[in-house]
Amino acid sequence: MTSHQQAVDALRDLLGDRLSTGPSILDLHGRDAAYSTPRAPDAVAFPDSTEEVSEIVRICARHGCPVVPFGIGSSLEGHVIPVQGGISLDMSRMNRVLKVNERDLDAVVQPGVTRTQLNRELRATGLMFTVDPGADATLGGMASTRASGTNAVRYGTMRENVLALTVVLPDGRIIRTGSRARKSSAGYDLTHLFVGAEGTLGIITELTVRLFGVPERIHAATCAFEDVESAVDTVILAIQSGLPMARIELLDDFQMKGMNLLSPELDLPEKPHLFLEFHGTEAGVGEQVETFRDIAEAHGVSDFRTATRTEDRNRLWEARHNAYFAAKALMPGCSAVLTDCCVPISALAECIARAKSEIASSGLIAPIVGHVGDGNFHLSILIDPENPDDFARAKDLATRINAAALDLGGTVTGEHGVGTGKMRYMRAEHGEGWDLMAQIKRAIDPANIMNPGKIVEA
Amino acid sequence: MTSHQQAVDALRDLLGDRLSTGPSILDLHGRDAAYSTPRAPDAVAFPDSTEEVSEIVRICARHGCPVVPFGIGSSLEGHVIPVQGGISLDMSRMNRVLKVNERDLDAVVQPGVTRTQLNRELRATGLMFTVDPGADATLGGMASTRASGTNAVRYGTMRENVLALTVVLPDGRIIRTGSRARKSSAGYDLTHLFVGAEGTLGIITELTVRLFGVPERIHAATCAFEDVESAVDTVILAIQSGLPMARIELLDDFQMKGMNLLSPELDLPEKPHLFLEFHGTEAGVGEQVETFRDIAEAHGVSDFRTATRTEDRNRLWEARHNAYFAAKALMPGCSAVLTDCCVPISALAECIARAKSEIASSGLIAPIVGHVGDGNFHLSILIDPENPDDFARAKDLATRINAAALDLGGTVTGEHGVGTGKMRYMRAEHGEGWDLMAQIKRAIDPANIMNPGKIVEA
Repeated sequence: MTSHQQAVDALRDLLGDRLSTGPSILDLHGRDAAYSTPRAPDAVAFPDSTEEVSEIVRICARHGCPVVPFGIGSSLEGHVIPVQGGISLDMSRMNRVLKVNERDLDAVVQPGVTRTQLNRELRATGLMFTVDPGADATLGGMASTRASGTNAVRYGTMRENVLALTVVLPDGRIIRTGSRARKSSAGYDLTHLFVGAEGTLGIITELTVRLFGVPERIHAATCAFEDVESAVDTVILAIQSGLPMARIELLDDFQMKGMNLLSPELDLPEKPHLFLEFHGTEAGVGEQVETFRDIAEAHGVSDFRTATRTEDRNRLWEARHNAYFAAKALMPGCSAVLTDCCVPISALAECIARAKSEIASSGLIAPIVGHVGDGNFHLSILIDPENPDDFARAKDLATRINAAALDLGGTVTGEHGVGTGKMRYMRAEHGEGWDLMAQIKRAIDPANIMNPGKIVEA
Repeated sequence: MTSHQQAVDALRDLLGDRLSTGPSILDLHGRDAAYSTPRAPDAVAFPDSTEEVSEIVRICARHGCPVVPFGIGSSLEGHVIPVQGGISLDMSRMNRVLKVNERDLDAVVQPGVTRTQLNRELRATGLMFTVDPGADATLGGMASTRASGTNAVRYGTMRENVLALTVVLPDGRIIRTGSRARKSSAGYDLTHLFVGAEGTLGIITELTVRLFGVPERIHAATCAFEDVESAVDTVILAIQSGLPMARIELLDDFQMKGMNLLSPELDLPEKPHLFLEFHGTEAGVGEQVETFRDIAEAHGVSDFRTATRTEDRNRLWEARHNAYFAAKALMPGCSAVLTDCCVPISALAECIARAKSEIASSGLIAPIVGHVGDGNFHLSILIDPENPDDFARAKDLATRINAAALDLGGTVTGEHGVGTGKMRYMRAEHGEGWDLMAQIKRAIDPANIMNPGKIVEA
C-alpha cells in the first residue's frame, strides 16, 4: 500500500462520505480552467472547519501525502492540479460569511465563499467587496493567487484587501495572521506571506477582507479610439492626472469583434475601446467624467457612450468579465493560452506595441484586454487544440511577450499567479530572490507536502 | 581577540576612515529616541553602496558578529541598539534620490534619504511622498519599522508605499524584491516580508516608493469638542461615511495644553481637538468639508477653524509633529514612555475610554494623540527619570492599555514596531504565529547576526 493510499484510508475514517474517490470527482479536481496538463488526485476531501483541515493536514503530514487546496478550479496556471498526486482539499463546504462588521468596513469569511456570493450577502448593508477576477472565484483561491480584476486601480488587489487570515500550517498548527486593526508594526507580515503563496505554505481557512461603501454615484462609459496607442495614451494621462478612476479597461479591435459575437446587444463599433467606471459623489463624478473626456478627446476618441442605469452597467461589466469567452468565440472549438504581464504604466504603450508586433509575426489570433490603469494586460492566444504546432507557437509568443515585460521593468504575472505554468520565468524575474523563496518554503514545509511543484523548486 | 574585534579589524581594512570607534560616535549609535537601555556597538560602519554593505555583511557573517542598521536613530523601541554588541551600520552616506519616475508616480531612493529630503527634492515635480512619522526619519528606517503617520488614513503606511527593495541577505547575497509594476502575482511577497522586519532578515539598501500628485486643493482645519468621546464618534462616522479624509488626528485636552506651551502662536482652546486635512479638487474639498462639518456639529463641535494658506497649514502640522515634545513640556525635565496601540475603528471609543480610566487610576500624566482615522493612538506617559517607581508605574499603565487593545481585536503597535520593547507582547498578540516568525528568521539568518534580539527569540 502506498503512503498516499494510507493517507486516503485514514482520511476516510475521519471524513466518511466527505472523502471521495469517485472518478468524475477525481477528474474534476485534476484540471483547471486553462490549458494545463490534467492529473487526478488520489482522493478529494471536503472539510467543514478549520479544525478538520488541521486534522487532514496532520494525517497527510504523517504519510508524506501532498495536499492541494481547491476553490472552484478557475485558476489558470495549474495551481489546483495535484502534479504529485495526493489529496485535493475542496473548500466548497466552508462557504459561510461569518461576520460583517459594518462599522469597520470588513467581513470575516470562510475560504469557499465566492466574490458574487459575498456581494449578494452584503446587499442590504450598502457595502461592497471590490476584487473581481473574471471568474466567480472563491475568496480563498483569490487570496492564494493574489487575484485582482477591474477595480484594482482604485480599490487594490487581494494584497490590499486581505486584513487577516487563519491558516493551517504544514504540521497542522493553526495560526491567525494580522488583525482587524487597519495597520500594525507587530513583526513579520505573515498575512502578506500567505496571500499569493498558492497554498504552498499552508491552507487558508478564514479570511478578513476589506469592504467599501457603495458610492453615492456610479457612472460607466465606453469609448472607442482609432488605435490601441491612442487608448493607452489616454489611460496613462488619466492615471498621471490623479483621476480616481474606479475601472479603466482596454479591449482591442479583435476583442471587440469577439464581444459582438458573444454579446451582440452591446452593438459597439469594432475599434479599440476603453470601458470606464467613475465612483464618487454626484459632483465628484461629474468632474471626473469631464476631465476624462477632455483627455480622451485630445486622443481622438469617438463614440463616447455612458451607462448610468444599474442594468446597463451590469450588462457592460458582465460582457467585460466574459472577455475570455468572447475571445474564444472568434474561433469556434479553439483553446486559448492566456498571458498576464504587468509593467510600469510609462512602459505600457511600448509593451503593448511590442506585443502587437509579436502577434503579427506569429500569425496567430490573440485579442488583447487589460486592466490598463495598473499596467496589466492579457492576450488570449487562440489555438486549435488538435494542432500541437499551434500550441508550440502560442507558447513561443507568450515567452516573447513575457520577456518584453521583464525587459521593461515589469512582471510575468499581474494577477494569475505562478502555479506550474509560470515557474520557468521565475529565475529571470527574481534572480536569487527565487532561491530565498525556496528557503522560506523549505523552512515552513520541510516535507514539501503543501501543493508541491508550484512557485518554487523545493 | 574576540570575534567582534576580528570583524572590526577586517572592516577597517575595507572601510578605512569610514569605520569609527570614536567614543562619541559609539555612544550616539547605542541609544534611540526613547526610554530604552543604551548599549554601544563595537564599531560604526558608514557604507557607500549596496556592494559595500554586502562586503560588510560577509565579513560580519564570517566572524559571527552582529550587524544593526541605523538610520537617524529616531525609533522608539530599541531597534537600533546593538544589544549583543557588533557593528552599527549607519546608512547616512547612502542618502541619494536615485531616480524620480514622474510618469509612474514612484521614486527610487537610497535608505538614508529622509522623508523631508525626498519631498524637498520632489518640489518641482508636483508630486509628494506621503508617509510622515513624527521624526524626520530615513526611508530605510521607516520601511524597516513599517512606519506611518498622519496621512496613512488616505495614502497608506510604508506597507502600501514600498513597491520594491534591494536587500542584502545575512550571507551577503544581494536580491531585488518586487518591481516598479503596480501589482504582481509572481510568488511570495518578499517586499512585504522585509518591510517591518526591522533589519532582522537583511539590510535594505535601496527602495522604490510610491508618490502621489499634490492635490489641486488642500484645506486644513481644527475643531474642538467638549470631550474625547464626541471627537472620536465624529471620526468613526466620518470614516464610515467614506469621506476620503487626508488627515484626521486626535489631541486630548492635556496634549492641547502642552501644545499651547510649545506653540503658543496657535492659541487653541484647551479642549480635545481634531486636526484635519482634506485633499481634492476645489469642488471635492468643498463637499468634504461640508459633510464633515455636518457630522461634527451633530457631536457638539465648537471653534471650527480652517487653514488654507500653505504657511498656516505648515504651522499646524509642524505643531502636530512636535506632539511628543509638547507633551513633555507639561513636566519639565521629564522622560516619556510612549504607547502605540491600534484597534478596529468600531472599538476606538471603548479603547480610549479604557485608556483614560487607566490613566486616572495610575495617577500619572499621559496626554493622548492619535491617528484616529486608522484606529491608532498614543499615550505619552510622563515620568521623572530620577524616580524608578515612576517608570514601573508607566510600564504597568502601558501594559494595561496594550492588553485592552488586544482584548478589543487590535495590535500593541500600529507604527512604532517591536524592537526589544514590545517583544513581551508578541506571544499574546500572535500565539503560534510568533513561532512561525522565528522559524522564518532562523531559515534566513541561521547564525542570528542580523539585528539579533529584536522581534523574535531566534
